[in-house]
Amino acid sequence: MARDKPKLRIGLIGTGFMGKTHVFGFASAPRVFDLPYEIELHTVADITDLAAAKAARDLGFAHATADWRVLVANPNIDLIDITAPNALHKEMALAAIAAGKHVYCEKPLAPLSADARAMAEAAEAAGVKTQVGFNYLCNPMLGLARDLIASGELGEIRSYRGVHAEDYMMEASSPFTFRHDTAGGGALADLGSHALATAEYLLGPIEQVLGDCVTAISERPDGKGGTREVEVDDIGRAFLRFANGASGSIEGNWIATGRKMQHDFDIHGSKGAIAFSQERFNELHFYSAADAAGRRGFRRIEAGPDHSPYGRFCVAPGHQLGFNDLKAIEIAGYLEAIGGERPEPFNFRAGLRIQTLVETIQLSSREGGWRRLG
Amino acid sequence: MARDKPKLRIGLIGTGFMGKTHVFGFASAPRVFDLPYEIELHTVADITDLAAAKAARDLGFAHATADWRVLVANPNIDLIDITAPNALHKEMALAAIAAGKHVYCEKPLAPLSADARAMAEAAEAAGVKTQVGFNYLCNPMLGLARDLIASGELGEIRSYRGVHAEDYMMEASSPFTFRHDTAGGGALADLGSHALATAEYLLGPIEQVLGDCVTAISERPDGKGGTREVEVDDIGRAFLRFANGASGSIEGNWIATGRKMQHDFDIHGSKGAIAFSQERFNELHFYSAADAAGRRGFRRIEAGPDHSPYGRFCVAPGHQLGFNDLKAIEIAGYLEAIGGERPEPFNFRAGLRIQTLVETIQLSSREGGWRRLG
Amino acid sequence: MARDKPKLRIGLIGTGFMGKTHVFGFASAPRVFDLPYEIELHTVADITDLAAAKAARDLGFAHATADWRVLVANPNIDLIDITAPNALHKEMALAAIAAGKHVYCEKPLAPLSADARAMAEAAEAAGVKTQVGFNYLCNPMLGLARDLIASGELGEIRSYRGVHAEDYMMEASSPFTFRHDTAGGGALADLGSHALATAEYLLGPIEQVLGDCVTAISERPDGKGGTREVEVDDIGRAFLRFANGASGSIEGNWIATGRKMQHDFDIHGSKGAIAFSQERFNELHFYSAADAAGRRGFRRIEAGPDHSPYGRFCVAPGHQLGFNDLKAIEIAGYLEAIGGERPEPFNFRAGLRIQTLVETIQLSSREGGWRRLG
Amino acid sequence: MARDKPKLRIGLIGTGFMGKTHVFGFASAPRVFDLPYEIELHTVADITDLAAAKAARDLGFAHATADWRVLVANPNIDLIDITAPNALHKEMALAAIAAGKHVYCEKPLAPLSADARAMAEAAEAAGVKTQVGFNYLCNPMLGLARDLIASGELGEIRSYRGVHAEDYMMEASSPFTFRHDTAGGGALADLGSHALATAEYLLGPIEQVLGDCVTAISERPDGKGGTREVEVDDIGRAFLRFANGASGSIEGNWIATGRKMQHDFDIHGSKGAIAFSQERFNELHFYSAADAAGRRGFRRIEAGPDHSPYGRFCVAPGHQLGFNDLKAIEIAGYLEAIGGERPEPFNFRAGLRIQTLVETIQLSSREGGWRRLG
Repeated sequence: MARDKPKLRIGLIGTGFMGKTHVFGFASAPRVFDLPYEIELHTVADITDLAAAKAARDLGFAHATADWRVLVANPNIDLIDITAPNALHKEMALAAIAAGKHVYCEKPLAPLSADARAMAEAAEAAGVKTQVGFNYLCNPMLGLARDLIASGELGEIRSYRGVHAEDYMMEASSPFTFRHDTAGGGALADLGSHALATAEYLLGPIEQVLGDCVTAISERPDGKGGTREVEVDDIGRAFLRFANGASGSIEGNWIATGRKMQHDFDIHGSKGAIAFSQERFNELHFYSAADAAGRRGFRRIEAGPDHSPYGRFCVAPGHQLGFNDLKAIEIAGYLEAIGGERPEPFNFRAGLRIQTLVETIQLSSREGGWRRLG
Repeated sequence: MARDKPKLRIGLIGTGFMGKTHVFGFASAPRVFDLPYEIELHTVADITDLAAAKAARDLGFAHATADWRVLVANPNIDLIDITAPNALHKEMALAAIAAGKHVYCEKPLAPLSADARAMAEAAEAAGVKTQVGFNYLCNPMLGLARDLIASGELGEIRSYRGVHAEDYMMEASSPFTFRHDTAGGGALADLGSHALATAEYLLGPIEQVLGDCVTAISERPDGKGGTREVEVDDIGRAFLRFANGASGSIEGNWIATGRKMQHDFDIHGSKGAIAFSQERFNELHFYSAADAAGRRGFRRIEAGPDHSPYGRFCVAPGHQLGFNDLKAIEIAGYLEAIGGERPEPFNFRAGLRIQTLVETIQLSSREGGWRRLG
Repeated sequence: MARDKPKLRIGLIGTGFMGKTHVFGFASAPRVFDLPYEIELHTVADITDLAAAKAARDLGFAHATADWRVLVANPNIDLIDITAPNALHKEMALAAIAAGKHVYCEKPLAPLSADARAMAEAAEAAGVKTQVGFNYLCNPMLGLARDLIASGELGEIRSYRGVHAEDYMMEASSPFTFRHDTAGGGALADLGSHALATAEYLLGPIEQVLGDCVTAISERPDGKGGTREVEVDDIGRAFLRFANGASGSIEGNWIATGRKMQHDFDIHGSKGAIAFSQERFNELHFYSAADAAGRRGFRRIEAGPDHSPYGRFCVAPGHQLGFNDLKAIEIAGYLEAIGGERPEPFNFRAGLRIQTLVETIQLSSREGGWRRLG
Repeated sequence: MARDKPKLRIGLIGTGFMGKTHVFGFASAPRVFDLPYEIELHTVADITDLAAAKAARDLGFAHATADWRVLVANPNIDLIDITAPNALHKEMALAAIAAGKHVYCEKPLAPLSADARAMAEAAEAAGVKTQVGFNYLCNPMLGLARDLIASGELGEIRSYRGVHAEDYMMEASSPFTFRHDTAGGGALADLGSHALATAEYLLGPIEQVLGDCVTAISERPDGKGGTREVEVDDIGRAFLRFANGASGSIEGNWIATGRKMQHDFDIHGSKGAIAFSQERFNELHFYSAADAAGRRGFRRIEAGPDHSPYGRFCVAPGHQLGFNDLKAIEIAGYLEAIGGERPEPFNFRAGLRIQTLVETIQLSSREGGWRRLG
């Protein structure tokens, strides 16, 4: 049977955790959404020919290469998807943009905001569509939270408290890696960035920050029998001022023992409140001061077809989306943007914004004092 | 690049809620798992040519037909996937089995156990592989629960309390449908069947039941301006005796206002206990009496790579699977069974078992007294 | 300063767990409530003179005795409070009633309903005021639940699911005690009775029951090096029909590993639902189908001054009542009844009712079939 | 019957929320604990003779006065209990100390740390025993948390996150009161003080703070038809450095819509973690990294007799303490200290410490930069 949608041919660089997650999203997004393109998994690049060939077979790509430059240069590829280590994002993305490709890049966009800026500006100059992978924002429950704010159901927003805590760096015996390098690493950059993205997604621009970045595990094994000093933060905190007048705080923490995915927030408005935890991300807790006396309380709203695009995945409420479904939503939004149906959901400019926030908090922590965002 | 896996060509009958869910599973399972087959979405059947053509386009099938018999007879199709209304399951499945196809059928296998028995026996005689869609059993947390029981960590199992409650029939104004027919319908058959399947999955065979089936909304609009008497149960309950000596209860309830997916259970053993709710199905609550005094409590275990096959979907714990992921697990298990790598996870014989349990409970409710399972 | 309230002089029999709890209630109730009487802790009776003297000193009674008959006969005592073992309730209560005393008796009123009936009839004939200690009913959140039902906010009530589960008998090595005797003992009588009391408190009379009583630990150490066969149930279950048309179930379970105080219920009505757990008894979860689409969910209502008599204990919401506070509420209600300000909250007639329900369920379990309450 | 304990005669100043709570504690503490003294409610002081007389009658005091100075000077009173407005604490306490009385003072000890210091020094010079009412610290679950830290079960403590949020000031229409005065008022002083007290109770001394105090509702009705500018904070936040090397944060917030008693904390150590919420203060959530792989999770430990002094209130676990029970524990500890059986649990010196922390955070917020505690 003829398919009348144009093809969008994907070139994927990197086949780790996030590479696989993207592929899962590419597989399910076209079934769940009515996308403007037919996705074709064209070529995958990995470190060696062998690894690339295996990845192609496992992940369903037609072609494989050990040279990402070949992939980027291939005129039969429309979109370059970068899930390689952070330090390589810039070079890869600029090459892809130069070749006129759309670029989908995992977070963080680049370890340094200067690099992220160069990437954003290049993409804008070239007119290609970009996307950075902040997939927690794709949760229908975050959309509901935004709706509750936009509708005025919470009234004037007064305070925000956000956290993104995990424990994958809790062991002092975990070796020094690229994540512990000074160049843009640390818990604030890795996890606090999610907390910042969610904060701005919901409340709008942050205007000022006061930072507190702490290294709790001062040295880690260097893999050669010795240790190496850690210069990045294990915990990054900030106080915030939003343009809408609200104040708040965020924390990014990768030594939060016992926490696997605590991307949580509390929002208090003059008429209502919201509480959310990524640990149970198919729920939003909503308090309305307008409820009758003696009947007030946080409502545990379960995700359902009322909360777009949940209904695309399942017609019945309460069945729940998974992490990979969020990636499918992210991909659908991006493809709709490429197709001109909507603005880019979270483009390189947005990715740059997050890097700028991170660096401003780091600067505030290092040198002291409140810092204003540009 | 050549793909060396044999193809498994799917023919899907039915394109509603469950039809889509199956397609989502067919899309993601091959990315997540290393399946013995390459899945090909060959043909989809719907009521009309137009609907079938649209479904093919939306869901990614190469061919479409308005005649399911044509689909079943097609020698280029290996597996018939039936998500049509329950009353049609038998005829479709028998035709597919007669054509030598593997048959994947949504639950309930058939409204009457006699029909289910005919289907199971036909499949066994033909040597085809079958599967019934009890996907809640595919949750890694249920696997963990089973492991905790099998390992002896709970000790001797003493009691079980299960419920499957939703509220989609709560409105008395909801019209009379095929689900309200006497032939195998009702909350016990529709939802209680899940509670029964989970109970036997975890504790092994149920030997005796004492039933209580209640019709709470005695008549519903007939769609012609009048009403029609409802003969099926809105709530089906049973007391249970298991072969392992434990006693228990289950409830199926489709007028449980506020509940969207309350597939919950509590299990008490001589050394520990388990509590689970499908409302938060990426968690299992485990109590160990072996914990130190003053330190005992139900542990909220979050799904992670320690709980196979979670790690296939995500290498990091706490990210959570969604409902559609459970379907992908179900499909992977079925394809592995077709490939001879494992027994069928939940074949027609197992589907018959559930129908038999349902009917025995209904009989007990109608005529009174404990009833022994065959 | 002169106190113008009449004195109510208490004679307490029994100084164990419940005896102390009553004393705590007598101490706090007059501070929290404006009672019609001044409570005077007059005399306490225990097994020996020494034990009674110590109890008097510890608990604040002016006098002590080793002979409960002396206490009952004392003309200077107004109210006899019985917290002695169940088997003695009848004799003590009848003696107290004969002496014209008000009688406050811990639950169960008596192991056999025939005895409970004699006690209720004697009290009514004598015109004394009686109270049985079903203190979970005194929780303001249960009052709220009853209000939500009475107000019609839940609509027509359709189903009820109650449980009272603890684990204090979970060890097979726990010795045989008076609780394991056939005369009125078992988990249904001990714990299921609470579930039944709550069910009728909220939904009104139960008309029919179908019972299932199970002994899971068939013998227990007899304290003499041997074992003794247990004849009472470890788990007592029942299906229920209420006069209001609703159906339901309850379970009493004293081998529910990990559960310390799971007195929980779910109620589903045509317009709303309630979920409650004694594990968090300062909360009630209320679902209203009248909430806006996309905004519906169970509200976690925290106890506060809107929920009488919480405000007597604390003017600020969310501070929480404790178990002993429930006893203070129970005592206040009883004293108000003695003072003629209100009917007895839970008198011997009500205690008899619970015993009758328990025995009817036991009978149904033993002989089979639904049983109608008298 | 003779009582051989010496009497401790109480003089109470103030009969509002906290005055009543103290009286509830005085009533129940002697029943629950074996105190070194017999408590006698001697005299209560209120604004007018009429109010004082009514309070005496309602609360059970033998005498009443409209002049607190008379009460303080009365040689028949041993302990002065101050629950009057904060601004009066100093004058009352100093007079009581000068009269040689023990002094029990509600929090905050005084609006300004200089006053608190004068009170602490006067008490120490006079050798009287003092107590400030930080009753959340009396929760057995906080004792358990401290034990888990002291025992090393959490390993090295790395991070702390505390909050005390309520919503009683959320309405912009709530009038200006003494709580909005600059002299020591605000959410940080009122609620953040609890978060600070708990932080030091668990982790030991805070060495440095970085503050962020925000006024969200800038003016409030002055009660005369106009408005008055609010100078105190509605939200007070701080980053923290502890002497033990941990870092952390706290927030005090009295406009946290929907929150009635959110006194919560998360503690992460190298081997385990704790999560606590005052909203469910009979539970502590404990994560041990030493649990077996695939079996790890936060354990919901319910308060029970293993957690002293819970067993004094109830011999069975899970029955739960209430807010007023915490006050009884506080009073018991104080009386034991007066009796020389233990150090003062939270004396004026400890109260001064909290005021100093509050003021240092306020100073940091006002002038910027980290501030070291003296």
